[in-house]
Amino acid sequence: MPFEITNDLIKQVQLYIQQLDDNALLQLLEDEHHADIAELLNELNLNEATYIIKLLDSELTSDILMDLDEDVREKILKKLSAKEIAEELEELDTDDAADIVSELPEERQERVISHIEDEEHVKDIVELLTYDENSAGGLMAKELVKVNENWNVTRCVKEMRTQAKDVTRVHSIYVVDNENKLKGRLSLKDLLVTSAKAHISEIYIPKVDAVNVNEKGEEVARIMQKYDLEAIPVTDDNEHLLGRITIDDIVDVIKEEAEKDYQMAAGLTEDIEADDTIFEHTRARLPWLFLGLIGGVGAAAIMGGFEDLISKHAILFFFTPLIAAMAGNVGVQSSAIIVQGLANDDLKGSIGNRLLKEFLLAIVNGIALSILLFAFTWLWHGEIKISMAISISLFAVIIMAGIVGTFIPLFLDKRGIDPAIATGPFITTTNDVFGILIYFMIAKAILGI
Amino acid sequence: MPFEITNDLIKQVQLYIQQLDDNALLQLLEDEHHADIAELLNELNLNEATYIIKLLDSELTSDILMDLDEDVREKILKKLSAKEIAEELEELDTDDAADIVSELPEERQERVISHIEDEEHVKDIVELLTYDENSAGGLMAKELVKVNENWNVTRCVKEMRTQAKDVTRVHSIYVVDNENKLKGRLSLKDLLVTSAKAHISEIYIPKVDAVNVNEKGEEVARIMQKYDLEAIPVTDDNEHLLGRITIDDIVDVIKEEAEKDYQMAAGLTEDIEADDTIFEHTRARLPWLFLGLIGGVGAAAIMGGFEDLISKHAILFFFTPLIAAMAGNVGVQSSAIIVQGLANDDLKGSIGNRLLKEFLLAIVNGIALSILLFAFTWLWHGEIKISMAISISLFAVIIMAGIVGTFIPLFLDKRGIDPAIATGPFITTTNDVFGILIYFMIAKAILGI
Repeated sequence: MPFEITNDLIKQVQLYIQQLDDNALLQLLEDEHHADIAELLNELNLNEATYIIKLLDSELTSDILMDLDEDVREKILKKLSAKEIAEELEELDTDDAADIVSELPEERQERVISHIEDEEHVKDIVELLTYDENSAGGLMAKELVKVNENWNVTRCVKEMRTQAKDVTRVHSIYVVDNENKLKGRLSLKDLLVTSAKAHISEIYIPKVDAVNVNEKGEEVARIMQKYDLEAIPVTDDNEHLLGRITIDDIVDVIKEEAEKDYQMAAGLTEDIEADDTIFEHTRARLPWLFLGLIGGVGAAAIMGGFEDLISKHAILFFFTPLIAAMAGNVGVQSSAIIVQGLANDDLKGSIGNRLLKEFLLAIVNGIALSILLFAFTWLWHGEIKISMAISISLFAVIIMAGIVGTFIPLFLDKRGIDPAIATGPFITTTNDVFGILIYFMIAKAILGI
Repeated sequence: MPFEITNDLIKQVQLYIQQLDDNALLQLLEDEHHADIAELLNELNLNEATYIIKLLDSELTSDILMDLDEDVREKILKKLSAKEIAEELEELDTDDAADIVSELPEERQERVISHIEDEEHVKDIVELLTYDENSAGGLMAKELVKVNENWNVTRCVKEMRTQAKDVTRVHSIYVVDNENKLKGRLSLKDLLVTSAKAHISEIYIPKVDAVNVNEKGEEVARIMQKYDLEAIPVTDDNEHLLGRITIDDIVDVIKEEAEKDYQMAAGLTEDIEADDTIFEHTRARLPWLFLGLIGGVGAAAIMGGFEDLISKHAILFFFTPLIAAMAGNVGVQSSAIIVQGLANDDLKGSIGNRLLKEFLLAIVNGIALSILLFAFTWLWHGEIKISMAISISLFAVIIMAGIVGTFIPLFLDKRGIDPAIATGPFITTTNDVFGILIYFMIAKAILGI
């Protein structure tokens, strides 16, 4: 990978743009990979990036556009005319073209589409726009290679050569009947190894995994991973072949899912990157911090209710941060394991069993940590009743936190809500407040005030 | 996907095993996908699972073994003889075979390898075992299709047919010179569309992305994602072609990386699944909880140092959980963004700029939240000095937490340590303790005690 985005390179490109030295720019960039040029454009300002997009050939720039950060792409598209965008779309596979169109403001969509010359391409894009973005239909491309079961190998190879021109990567050749119903598949390898006279119906593999066009994106990802597929055909309810999804799009789905879960666990409400603006960061961070503030105020109110304890046993108050932190940590651990289990679809057994296991686990962890805390507070303060109050509370809080952390994501999932929102600040805040309440109630009971 | 692991199915299989009804088992399972059978075996006990592995054909069971959970596989392999394992390995691609061998105890490895009959296969496996598990060499398979640049298309197709038998999926045909140096690639599509008399040297694409055999797995994943590759050849320092890595293995790397980061953020020290034993869960969870306990004790000690404040302003103590929670939440948000930016390799600019941005961001969030908290405490308690002490502390703590959360992962990364350990409990605990210290110091200064 010899192409590296250095400061020198960026300065060089900016200089050429200022000098309007198109030849030098073309020479510098023409042979580079679109993903590399996209990285470069992400570093330039909007006018510079647009200049380069307009300069380079649309065969290259269409791919560059797809590789750009979404916000950069959006801004550049605003600077291009409907006709210029249409030229880019002509070069793209239908799935990518439909993605770009769907990012445009509605009033522009039609105008852009009307400028695309290839009618077949228009029809495909318009069809793809009808599917939900997160469904198999929203992920699939119309480009694929299909042959009729009634053809022979020679005809098949001939037809394929025509079709393959439009298809970037031929994974499987799909076999359909006269009504376009998916019957099976053929690999290129099979075709290379078979006699030219053989009939397709004799050599195709009738077993083929397919997904329904309305299947969720995550489910498609799970199936393709489980069966190690590099492409999967998409069919309608009557098994007519509609399109196919390739593994590169699924890699993106997997990454996005993982990042979304990670960001939720970290208390970020939106997909945010380090280089986004301060405004975007604030919008993503402030809501959960606000929730944390409410929780903290709730905790303060609870502690205010036990003010009489303070005068006699100030030491109890010194341990509230410990109790709250442990409640939060245990809750995050438990919920993360459930969220990950749900995402990987490997949670078996009933909710009851799951809670029982978490209960047992909390007892083991709780005993270990409570004994330690008992020993420490006793050495420090020397009052066995106080030490008992603190360590028994810790034990109770760990059990509560484990059960809440397990139950909430399972409950949300049953309700059809993304369980990932139950990790991070949500579970921490809930458990903080509950934990502190339990702590002071137990302490009060034991110390008898 | 009609095959579903129901309780009925599991009971049916268990019954057949008890009755030693091999025919019924074969009929039930023979045509199912190895990934489905692996899921079924994960649900059976060890003896039952081993029974099925011994019963089915090794062509099928070798793939089943690869799909099993690692701990189940390890136990089953213990039950198989060296010769039986060797039979499985004969059916597997070299990368999978090497993975299985590396999981065996050392004294068994040689014995198992000595039972493999195909000498070429043995040589390849032994070579793969020499590479680091997380390097390109540890991910690659020796199976690939390569042709000499001096051949013509006819010879190429002939040789390919022989080679392709051993290769599950032919992505690219690699072109090498007489010394096995990688010169370029050819796609199957190109070969189908070209005249039989053409010389390979005339039609191959000389530009081919390749990775060095010692490249890190994550870097290979990044390159394959960036350039949308489905396979990448692996070369040694002198550009000799050694093997190739396919996207399905990279999907696993991406998932594992994401899960590792997520689990670290959630305070889990090991790769753990919901269905692992309570002992395994305790081992994964207790260390970070123990750290949290230490932090809590530290916080208690700090608060103990401000005991004189309690008698006069008990309300200050009611807000320690709020201060600690906010410090933790801000720290986790900041560190998560840095960790994700580092993982995606899209952090540009210096550490100084990064810290400055986080500082500005903390000021924005800090002002908003401090004003709210000031208003609330003032309404509740009516003492402006107290409200000032609490809300100014919150402001200071948010800034501290943002900067610590940004700095620590960047610092660890510079030192070559995985920055992901700096998320979750580590950053929460650190910020809890610092936050509480800052809180009481500021409060003491403002209230002048």
